[in-house]
Amino acid sequence: MSLNPQYEDIGKGFVQQYYALFDDPANRASVVNFYSATESFMTFEGHQIQGAPKILEKVQSLSFQKITRVITAVDSQPTFDGGVLINVLGRLQTDEDQPHAYIQTFVLKPVGGSFFVQHDIFRLSLHDV
Amino acid sequence: MSLNPQYEDIGKGFVQQYYALFDDPANRASVVNFYSATESFMTFEGHQIQGAPKILEKVQSLSFQKITRVITAVDSQPTFDGGVLINVLGRLQTDEDQPHAYIQTFVLKPVGGSFFVQHDIFRLSLHDV
Repeated sequence: MSLNPQYEDIGKGFVQQYYALFDDPANRASVVNFYSATESFMTFEGHQIQGAPKILEKVQSLSFQKITRVITAVDSQPTFDGGVLINVLGRLQTDEDQPHAYIQTFVLKPVGGSFFVQHDIFRLSLHDV
Repeated sequence: MSLNPQYEDIGKGFVQQYYALFDDPANRASVVNFYSATESFMTFEGHQIQGAPKILEKVQSLSFQKITRVITAVDSQPTFDGGVLINVLGRLQTDEDQPHAYIQTFVLKPVGGSFFVQHDIFRLSLHDV
């Protein structure tokens, strides 16, 4: 049980690195390397999947090419196993769609001097009005 | 390391219970009982505090009385220590202010047959446009 004092930099650095790959259609599939084969959960718009192979399938099924993204806030907290909880609030626009606000939460789990994504929850901020 | 198969119900039940107290001015301060004296983090609009005494101080410093809240989505995932990661997307209106979308993330940590809130991140969904 130890807190990583670098949690703020780790959170910001991860978000930058993750989206640099995800937002590039030629590299999008390589985000699969952030996930564990079995111990990673992803909830994408309420649909829950587990493990890197299914997460890759999901990422590859996304039909858009271009993403324009603006990050509004990144809030990080150290977890008691040396990992980092990260909350991202932002806006994104896929291809020529309307821009939408979104939220994405990651939990980074430490493993051998690095991290993998143990939890990933993504939601477009769409409300019934 | 064990996943709690009831994570979905625990997440939804917790959110209901937490906001029932928080949204009632007479009971708001009692949410402090969900937090640990030392092992709870709260990040409120980017301001980070730790431990139940400081969290109580923060909750008591909130100037509004009435909250009208509508929950849009609750996404939960089981954590590998038997806890639950919860993401809430909703809208709220305090007193006579404008309604705003918000996000709140909780991590529930199991302890002695119950849970405490180890992580809590709150953000109004306000974007520079």
